[in-house]
Order: sequence, then C-alpha cells, then structure tokens
Amino acid sequence: MAQSQTDSTKNHWVLTFVCADKPGIVHAITGAILTAGGNITESKQYTSVDAQSGSARFFMRVQIEAAASLNEFETEITPVANQFGLDYKIDEVGRKMRTLILVSKSAHCLNDLLFSQRAGYLPIEVPAVFSNHSELNALAAFYSVPFESHSLSDEGSKLAFEHMLRDYIKSANIELIVLARFMQVLSAEFCAEFEGKIINIHHSFLPGFKGANPYAQAHARGVKLIGATAHFVTADLDEGPIIEQNVVRVNHSETKNELVRIGQDVESKTLAQAVRWFAEHRVLLDGERTIIFN
Amino acid sequence: MAQSQTDSTKNHWVLTFVCADKPGIVHAITGAILTAGGNITESKQYTSVDAQSGSARFFMRVQIEAAASLNEFETEITPVANQFGLDYKIDEVGRKMRTLILVSKSAHCLNDLLFSQRAGYLPIEVPAVFSNHSELNALAAFYSVPFESHSLSDEGSKLAFEHMLRDYIKSANIELIVLARFMQVLSAEFCAEFEGKIINIHHSFLPGFKGANPYAQAHARGVKLIGATAHFVTADLDEGPIIEQNVVRVNHSETKNELVRIGQDVESKTLAQAVRWFAEHRVLLDGERTIIFN
Amino acid sequence: MAQSQTDSTKNHWVLTFVCADKPGIVHAITGAILTAGGNITESKQYTSVDAQSGSARFFMRVQIEAAASLNEFETEITPVANQFGLDYKIDEVGRKMRTLILVSKSAHCLNDLLFSQRAGYLPIEVPAVFSNHSELNALAAFYSVPFESHSLSDEGSKLAFEHMLRDYIKSANIELIVLARFMQVLSAEFCAEFEGKIINIHHSFLPGFKGANPYAQAHARGVKLIGATAHFVTADLDEGPIIEQNVVRVNHSETKNELVRIGQDVESKTLAQAVRWFAEHRVLLDGERTIIFN
Amino acid sequence: MAQSQTDSTKNHWVLTFVCADKPGIVHAITGAILTAGGNITESKQYTSVDAQSGSARFFMRVQIEAAASLNEFETEITPVANQFGLDYKIDEVGRKMRTLILVSKSAHCLNDLLFSQRAGYLPIEVPAVFSNHSELNALAAFYSVPFESHSLSDEGSKLAFEHMLRDYIKSANIELIVLARFMQVLSAEFCAEFEGKIINIHHSFLPGFKGANPYAQAHARGVKLIGATAHFVTADLDEGPIIEQNVVRVNHSETKNELVRIGQDVESKTLAQAVRWFAEHRVLLDGERTIIFN
Repeated sequence: MAQSQTDSTKNHWVLTFVCADKPGIVHAITGAILTAGGNITESKQYTSVDAQSGSARFFMRVQIEAAASLNEFETEITPVANQFGLDYKIDEVGRKMRTLILVSKSAHCLNDLLFSQRAGYLPIEVPAVFSNHSELNALAAFYSVPFESHSLSDEGSKLAFEHMLRDYIKSANIELIVLARFMQVLSAEFCAEFEGKIINIHHSFLPGFKGANPYAQAHARGVKLIGATAHFVTADLDEGPIIEQNVVRVNHSETKNELVRIGQDVESKTLAQAVRWFAEHRVLLDGERTIIFN
Repeated sequence: MAQSQTDSTKNHWVLTFVCADKPGIVHAITGAILTAGGNITESKQYTSVDAQSGSARFFMRVQIEAAASLNEFETEITPVANQFGLDYKIDEVGRKMRTLILVSKSAHCLNDLLFSQRAGYLPIEVPAVFSNHSELNALAAFYSVPFESHSLSDEGSKLAFEHMLRDYIKSANIELIVLARFMQVLSAEFCAEFEGKIINIHHSFLPGFKGANPYAQAHARGVKLIGATAHFVTADLDEGPIIEQNVVRVNHSETKNELVRIGQDVESKTLAQAVRWFAEHRVLLDGERTIIFN
Repeated sequence: MAQSQTDSTKNHWVLTFVCADKPGIVHAITGAILTAGGNITESKQYTSVDAQSGSARFFMRVQIEAAASLNEFETEITPVANQFGLDYKIDEVGRKMRTLILVSKSAHCLNDLLFSQRAGYLPIEVPAVFSNHSELNALAAFYSVPFESHSLSDEGSKLAFEHMLRDYIKSANIELIVLARFMQVLSAEFCAEFEGKIINIHHSFLPGFKGANPYAQAHARGVKLIGATAHFVTADLDEGPIIEQNVVRVNHSETKNELVRIGQDVESKTLAQAVRWFAEHRVLLDGERTIIFN
Repeated sequence: MAQSQTDSTKNHWVLTFVCADKPGIVHAITGAILTAGGNITESKQYTSVDAQSGSARFFMRVQIEAAASLNEFETEITPVANQFGLDYKIDEVGRKMRTLILVSKSAHCLNDLLFSQRAGYLPIEVPAVFSNHSELNALAAFYSVPFESHSLSDEGSKLAFEHMLRDYIKSANIELIVLARFMQVLSAEFCAEFEGKIINIHHSFLPGFKGANPYAQAHARGVKLIGATAHFVTADLDEGPIIEQNVVRVNHSETKNELVRIGQDVESKTLAQAVRWFAEHRVLLDGERTIIFN
C-alpha cells in the first residue's frame, strides 16, 4: 500500500490520464481501483486552466498495487475512461522503456545515460544507438549496445535516415527517442509524427544567444550562470515544452573551454533527469508546457 | 475548479488529514466532497511506511471549491472521518493564521517576516512580537505590530514569561509561534504543550559544529557551504522535525562577519518559507519527519 | 597585513586599476606600495584577451594597510600609473558610497537595500530616494531617507526629471544610481553620461521572453527556473554588462502570482549583491563584460 | 600574457608557495619572474591570520609564461625563496598528475573520474586502480587502466596492502591517492605519511548522522538536502580539511534508494571537482582548512 515498501507478490501499475476537468473524476477513478482490489500507493494530480477561455483540464498520475491482473484492472477502468473521456495509459511500474539514442560526436550525455541505465538508475533499455559519426562506437560497445553510423551529408541521406528511423522505431517498439547531443535537425514531419516522444537537450544562457558558438558569446558577455534545458522536440517551435532545467555558476576567469566542460556536466545531468521522469510516466503534456509529477 | 483561477463567488477550503492507510480512503473522501457539491482544485497525498513494523499511514491535503457552507460540508465529511479514523482539519484557503513572533536582538528574520506579511506574501497576521530585549521595538512599530520586551534574567522571570505566553496564546487565539532568532531556550513542558506549533530557525553547517560561536568554527574549518534549517521545536530532541533547509556557497576568503551576513540571508529566507507552508497547511507531521505538500 | 584582522591604527585603502597588459606591472605596483610602507592585505588580478586582436588588458584590485597618508601613498603610485598608463582609483576601505535609489511602486528591492544598509551589510549611504510614484514614501521615511515623488507623465516631465537628476547627482556627490524596480526608461544621453554608474535589476528566464508580462509568458511555457540579472545600464544595449545573476527552481503548480513573489526574492538578493560588490570596488568593466573580484 | 590565450612556443609554469606574511613578498617574487623574462598570466593570493596569535601566513599561486627554461627560472626564484622562507612548488601547467585510485564496489565515482580524464577534463593520468573487491575490473579495463583486487579480510592482509601501496606509490611516482568510495580505513601511520595527498569523498547531511546507514537515517529524519564533502584524509581528524562540498534538494517522497542515487551523483561531481583543483595546484593547506585558488 506504500510507495517506499511494495508487496512483491502483487502487481504494480502506473496509470496516467488527462481529461476535461469535471466534478467526480477522482471519485470515479478511485472507485474503479478499489473495485479491482487495488491500493493507491502514490498519487499526484493537477488542474490546468486556460487563462483566456477559463476551460480546465485535469491531469493525474496514480501508482497502484493489486492482486488483480492487468485485464481485470482495465475492465474496471474502461467505463470510467469512457464516461469522463480520459486519455489514459497504464504501464507496469519499473518496466524498462525502449529507448533509441541518437548522438553525434560528443560523449558526455551518452556516457551518463548508459552508465545510469546499467547502474539501474534509469528505467530504460537501449536497443540501439544511431549516429551520424563513428566516434562513439566504442562507448556503446562497452555497454554492449548496438551502434550504427549513418552518413548524413545531403538531403537524400537525411531522408533515407529518417525512413530507416521510422522503420526501426516501429519494428523495435521504440517508445522514446533521445537526442543526446545529436547535431542534426530532424524534419518537421518526423518531429510531428513523434511529438511528445523525442527529448532533446541544449545549453541555456541568460540572456539567450542566437547563432553559432553560444559558449563563445556567453564568454564574451560575461554571463554568471550557464545551464541546460531538456525539452520535447516539436515541429513548429524553436524549442518545445520544457521538461527540466538546471544552471551552474561561472565567473569571468573561466575560459571558453571551461564553460564548455561545465555546460556539458549540466547537460548530462539535466537530460538524464528528463529521461528518468519520462520513463516513469511523470511527464504529461499540457499544450506548450509540461506537468511534472515528481 | 482550478487552482490558478478560483471562483470568487464560492467558498474555498483546505482539508488536511492523516489516518492509518486502508483501501478506499481517497474514494470515500472524494465521494463526500462530491456529495457536498465541492470540486477538488488541488490534491496531494503520501503514504508513509514504518520500515520496522511495515504499518502505513496516509496523509492528504485537498483544496476544495464549493457553494455549500462549511457546516454542510462538514456534515458530509464527518461520517468518512469516523469510518476511517481521520485526524483532520478544515480551514478557509488564504485565511491569515494568527502568529506570535518571539525575537531577541537580531532583526533580519523579523524584518523579512513583517515585510512579506504586509506585501501579502505570507498568509499570517501578527498580533504581537515579544522579546527579551528592546532593540526591535522600532521595527515592529513601523509595521504597526505591538511589541513587548520582557527581561529574562533568571529562572523566575523565565517561568513568569512562559506563564504569560500561555495566557496570551490562549486569549489571542495564537495558532503558530515563530522563534525568529529568539535566543532563549523554552522549557520542555512548554515545548511539549505546543508541539507542532513552534517553528525555530537555526544555522546549519556541514559538518555540524557543537558549542558556542559556530560561525567562528565554520570559518576555522573552511567550510564551503553554510545554511539554515527551519524546524519544529520539540521537548525531547535537540532538533525537531525539519521543515525546510537551504545552503549558500562560501569560500576561504570570506571573513567570519561575512559568513554571518550570508548565514542571516539564508536564515530569513528559510524561515519565511517554513512559515508560509505551515500557514497554508502544507506541513504535516509524520513522527520525526515532516511531509511537505508544496 | 591580513584581510580578516586589520590594524585599526593604520589606514586601509583599496586600489583598482586597468591598463594594457605588459610585463612588470605587478612588480612596479607592489614596489610602490612597499616603498610607501604599505602591506597588501588582499589582491586579485585578471588578464583579459581580445579573441580577435589578441591584445590583452590587465585588471587589478589591491587592499592595502599603511601608516602613511593618502597623499604620501599617491606620491609613490603616480609614477607607476604614468609609466604603465594605469586607469586607477584609490578609495578608503569601507567608506560608504553615496547612492541614489530610483523606484516606482514595488517595495521589495528598496526594502532589502535600506534594511541591509542600516544593518551594516551594504557600504552605502542613501541621501535620497526618487520615484515616479508616492507609494514607497513611508518605507523610505522609516529608514529616515528623504523621498521625492515626481510625476513622469509626458516627455516634458521626463526631461525635467533627468535635468533635476543631473543637478542632484552633481550637488549631492552621487557615485552610484540604483534602479530598484524603476519602471521608466532613462534617455540614451543620460545612460551614456553615467555609464558604469547605473545598476539595474530585471527578471531573467530561460528562454528569454520578449514583450509585456514576462511572468505570464514564463507561466504559460512552464519554465522550471526563474531568475534575475543585475547589470549596468548602457545607452546602446538592450542589456548592459552583467554583474550578477541568480535563479530559483519553480514547477508547474506555481501560479503566476507565486512566480512573481519568487522572482521578487531573487531580484532583491541579486541587486543587493551587485550593489555590495560595486560599493566595495569589486566590479570592473571590460567592454561588454564585468570582472568581479569577489 | 593571457590566461585564455597562451603562446604555445613558450613554457608555462604554475608556482605555488606559502610563507610567513611579510611586506615585499609579492614585489620580490614578481621581480624574479620579470628578471627571468616571465609574464604572469594568472595570480591569486591570500593572507591567513591566526585569530589567537595574530600571526599571518601568505599563500600564492601564479601561472607564468616564459621563453626561459625551468632551470633558468628556478635560478631567479631560489634567492627569493631563501630570503622569505617560501615553501614552494613549480610545475608545468597542464601536466597530468599521477593518480592512484582506490575503490571498493561502487562504480559511480570511478566512472566519472575515468570518463572525465579521458575526455581531457581532468589533468590526471591513472596508472592503476586498486580495490578490495573485483567488481570494477571491467570498468577499469574499458578505460585501459590496470586493475588489481586485493582481499583485505584481516589485519595481516591490510598491513600487507599498505606495504604494497607504499612501494607502488614510490616506484610509480604517485602524487595523488583518490579514495573513490574505498570502504576500508587506512591506518593512522599511512594517513600521516601521505598527509595532503589523499582525497576522500563522503556523503554529508544536515544534521550529520553518526553510525551505519546514514541514508536510512537521513530518510527517517526527512532531511531536505543531501550532499557530499571531498576532503583530505588525516591521521588525527575524523574528517580532514574540506576541499569541496555540494548539496541537492530532496523531499519526503523520495525513497531511501532514490536518496542513494542522488547522493551518488553529488559525490561523483564533488570528488571530480576536488581532484581537478588539486591536480591544477589550486588547493593549498592552511592548518585545518584549505585555500582554494579557483
């Protein structure tokens, strides 16, 4: 019945849903869980109101312990889902989410993800790492993860790469695509097709810097904080809904290269946190923003 | 129905409770709220399991919007409270909690509390500030808060002071006592009598330093972080359940006096946060620890 | 001879300078200090190299303890300053810098500055607070600081205000102008005339938001960090050289009003830090960036 | 002449020293550097005063660019060192410090050190990793670092291990010993012999917890911050001079295992920072505290 001490003889599920906010949702859903013999071991909810229209959407994440099977459980949930128009997902707690990682040459994010995954700190499994370069092959090999390098030199090869990705994502049941310093822009069509399933990481500064070589610009302006933002990739936004952000303090004496190193540490940590929350079904999309149930 | 946009023609309550964890609590309580015509606008819950006994306690905080009166609402809640053995409280959202502040000579925490209160950032009202010194009289007067100075030179005067406090707390309906750098030890009896209602702030270091003049010790040991802990005061513990903690980075070149200034900033901020959460019914006691529903 | 324990029978000066980087500067300046019977009790230096031209500028801040008078001391410094082309300042350590504060309606920054000043934490004296509104009169009065309200309704009144400011700054020997949430734009001429002497504070977000009501935008985009930047005001830049930046973590459940409160805390703290460093001659300008000798 | 842009046709040295504080030290040392044709590209100094005796010690770190050879340079430095009683070291900037890493079973710190070393972010070379367990052999092998496992089951084997360590440290010219979660206590004799050369990492909490299983205790007390301290190992102190500390925010809902994961991230980052500063000669010992010239 408890989050920090679970009964290993029982099943554990995580249910997430979003719907229009109406009285009685929580009562109905907890009633269904109760009827299925389930205990709620963790629960978070949030109501989001549109400032213009005043319309409200309700978000919820529930962890459940139950002797019942998933089928028996869904039998109880379905009528409530229909009645309240729930857009919902049920998953097994701790199940490893199938995650494809795309990289270029920078190792820091990939190293952190694979190390954390093997240490049991990230509930993901990584069937493949794809890259437009070959440098990170050995790192993937150390963690026994298949690695493929694809040259992306022109529009044709990029198109072919995205075709291959689509096929692979389907055949390998990929649920999450992580751009771990993948320095190629994916097409708007691809981003739209997998909206809410692609997580990217990039550096962040105050103020923001446009154009090439942002660390050089940050150094030139003498910023006192450098940071990173992990966000969903979307077709029409420069930067999609933010999942996590962190910053680190720097000063005038740090060289551009030191800013890069510090920035990479923040990037690794921030991306891993975003991936962890996503894989634990703690990230829900609310238009241009995310609800994080952590 | 929404946390960020409330209907001002309706009543808004905050319900907090704790009980033994059993299936059906959430279903029952949301059912009662629904029957009373209430909408849940914010909800947090947590199940705490005792590592030894395995017994679990359930904590919940719910904000509700309803046309019904408090009486009508309590009529629905009472049977559920009885059935599940809820230890519960209901309060009006945003009602200003009656808060007594005790101080000595240091102004930083009192200044921050009174400024924040007047700015509308702390849902408290402060009918009085009591002190064992007279220095902070003018500050209290600027904020139009009655100030009393009591000499606490011997055991007799301390005993008389605590007697006066008891009477005042009762007659003035004080709900929270804040020790804003009050440098006198309250008796074990007094602490026990008001357990869970007295919040104290003190500096915190890694490692902890025993004895007098901790900033001098921290300076001598060259600590890299100094911080503050806001906690409940209890009769039998050196330091009661922790409500909030913060730290700030320092270095070898900061003098002892600079450490004191930095420490005071952290103390002010940390104490104000703890008071805010308490006044919003976001702090629930779970044995030696706190559950913070923020 | 020591920073943390000074000899009160002696004089204490802070010398700051910038010059083209050449071998022998430090040797020459320490020689002059030695000849004047001075001991260096704190010293920081930095060499800044222009990435394009490769030309280097040398920045230094030195604290000195000496029995000699300022005149005797300057006699030794002058030849070195001439030889190496130093742009230098000498001041007494701890002397209170004459500071004019401009405000509008928001009290948080003014309260923090005046409280810190009176507590002895900010080496400034504040002969006046000027405002385009009357709301903060009582706060200034509590700290016994003269307060003037000037209506700035049209171009004529703005021009007259800046004329008055110029006269006041001159007659009152103002060394620093702090815009403590002063919501009026100063003219480019005024900014240019007092470049390096006007410090402003504004909120900062990742990503940055253009246009009105940035807290509403930050809320809509679900940022996870909100912050503040204290910077010099310049004529030709949207945002002048950055002096200090801080951020605080927020989440989806915080309302816009809560973001505002949190943002104000960060603003107060960040502005006070920038003012402290400036008043202690720890902020040196290096083109578009600052060197902070803290 | 510049820190951020060095002349690769010249030599670059870092000079660190400590001595009794007397007038003229900086002048003398900069004179010697000047005579040797050297330019100072980075310089930090600090004077530490004993609060009881009032006696002062002077610490300095200087980076120098020069055409001269190390011999020519030392010829100029030696008379100054003799005159002022300098305890000094000269090293080549960026030279990789020979570092022995001791581990037990936990991989997080070792992974971070070896990854950072290979990425060029830590100026160390690691000729060996020694352990009292075999688990981390594969990780060391991936980074092509020799790994030795030694059973430390009784006093005899511990004594033999320390004998072997002494021999290895001598024969392999080890300059730094890093205890990267090495769960064995080294003897007081060993610690004394290598004082100032052994860096350890351990978790840190507010308040501190004595005895076994500190994460369980921290969880039970509901701490809001968990952290790590990197420090020198000394014979007579529970915890030697602190080099670096960091904390991360946690809350009541994090399980003990999550606290462990978060704690490990902080440990890795904090240890790597301490090792970086040590290898760059930025850490100077001042009795029970460290001076960090970062």
